[in-house]
Amino acid sequence: MNKIEVCFSPELIHLHELQGKIVVVVDIFRATTTMVAALANGIEEISTFADLEECRRMKSQGFLIGGERNGQTVSGFDLGNSPVAFIKNEYSGQKLAMTTTNGTLAISKSANADEILIGAFPNLSATIAYIQKHRKDVLIHCAGWKGRFNLEDSLYAGALVKSLESSHEADEDGALAMKSLFEKEGHQLKGYLGQASHAKRLQNHGIEADIDFCLTLDLYDIVGKVENEKVKAVIKP
Amino acid sequence: MNKIEVCFSPELIHLHELQGKIVVVVDIFRATTTMVAALANGIEEISTFADLEECRRMKSQGFLIGGERNGQTVSGFDLGNSPVAFIKNEYSGQKLAMTTTNGTLAISKSANADEILIGAFPNLSATIAYIQKHRKDVLIHCAGWKGRFNLEDSLYAGALVKSLESSHEADEDGALAMKSLFEKEGHQLKGYLGQASHAKRLQNHGIEADIDFCLTLDLYDIVGKVENEKVKAVIKP
Repeated sequence: MNKIEVCFSPELIHLHELQGKIVVVVDIFRATTTMVAALANGIEEISTFADLEECRRMKSQGFLIGGERNGQTVSGFDLGNSPVAFIKNEYSGQKLAMTTTNGTLAISKSANADEILIGAFPNLSATIAYIQKHRKDVLIHCAGWKGRFNLEDSLYAGALVKSLESSHEADEDGALAMKSLFEKEGHQLKGYLGQASHAKRLQNHGIEADIDFCLTLDLYDIVGKVENEKVKAVIKP
Repeated sequence: MNKIEVCFSPELIHLHELQGKIVVVVDIFRATTTMVAALANGIEEISTFADLEECRRMKSQGFLIGGERNGQTVSGFDLGNSPVAFIKNEYSGQKLAMTTTNGTLAISKSANADEILIGAFPNLSATIAYIQKHRKDVLIHCAGWKGRFNLEDSLYAGALVKSLESSHEADEDGALAMKSLFEKEGHQLKGYLGQASHAKRLQNHGIEADIDFCLTLDLYDIVGKVENEKVKAVIKP
């Protein structure tokens, strides 16, 4: 049986062994959810940038550019960081450059992994199927919020641990705790995560539709995977 | 209403504000439990050391010295790190020097707090009463295991958050998650924490009696508090 563990912050990832593992990077509100929505709606590939101006420069290379600061689309950018912007398939065939701090850090700090997947609720089952097919140990790397534990990434981790019970043993404390948490609160994801500090921050910006989307299960069959520092869909939409 | 939050590792404590707060340091297996048992059984004060040889030198200053490495009492030391060693009141009136890595680090990194308490299940209610009397914001600082999240410290955090519901709002994600976890698993502490990675390590050393003791509620009325870098009982036994 393979094993599964959870790391709650990019600031703790150096304490975990990544080699030989599938690392699932999670930033539910909203970076990894936006990536999955974009890929499922025809975006060819995604480059992520912690730095806003680096991201902006990708515009001249033909990239669609997306980014927000303080909940507002950045001036001169095509898009904010909303997953909902992609769901009408308007940007199909384009390349996306997006700026996100927590998510970019978590991806770059996962570089030693055997494979890096991008986790989100809208493609949870697809990600589970991929992992069960590839039979490797799994580490769920929560992007967190400025280095701190957050509820939505952790609860996604719990969902994944629970769903992989038959193939991946949770013999590590973070995985055990999050499995229990998901068993208790997973039936009421939206109600429970409405309390989360980042959901409250987002609600203040009037983007309840994004939160709803980020907590919706299994809309898409694609799996998001990092290849050569770009995020791509493993199964084309 | 005051607030309560949880930090899961000394490696994340720099992300939390400590000033003005009561910080409760927790290292359930076994450092903080041993401290509480020692103080409740008449030990006058406790000095903690990360370094074994520094601890050993306290012997010549008249301290009782306690410490283990790899589950074995250190050669030349009076005691290991077992809380059960103190419960017959044999060492009453003495000063204790103990060596512990995770616990010492968590205490030293809590230095900016307004007050530092030592958390353990055997004096949970006494600690709750102290906090409710002093009306400050609370941060629970889990010592963890070599920087990583651990189940027993986190579940203690959940117990404290749950017990302080009426006076301290959990509006931070770590506190919310651990409250939920305690609501689900708190009725079967010993069964649930038997799965914890550190409990398994301890079981391998044949110290089930320690684990039982560490998970027993409300044996003592004392509160452990750090004053001038020493741990003392706030209410004398």
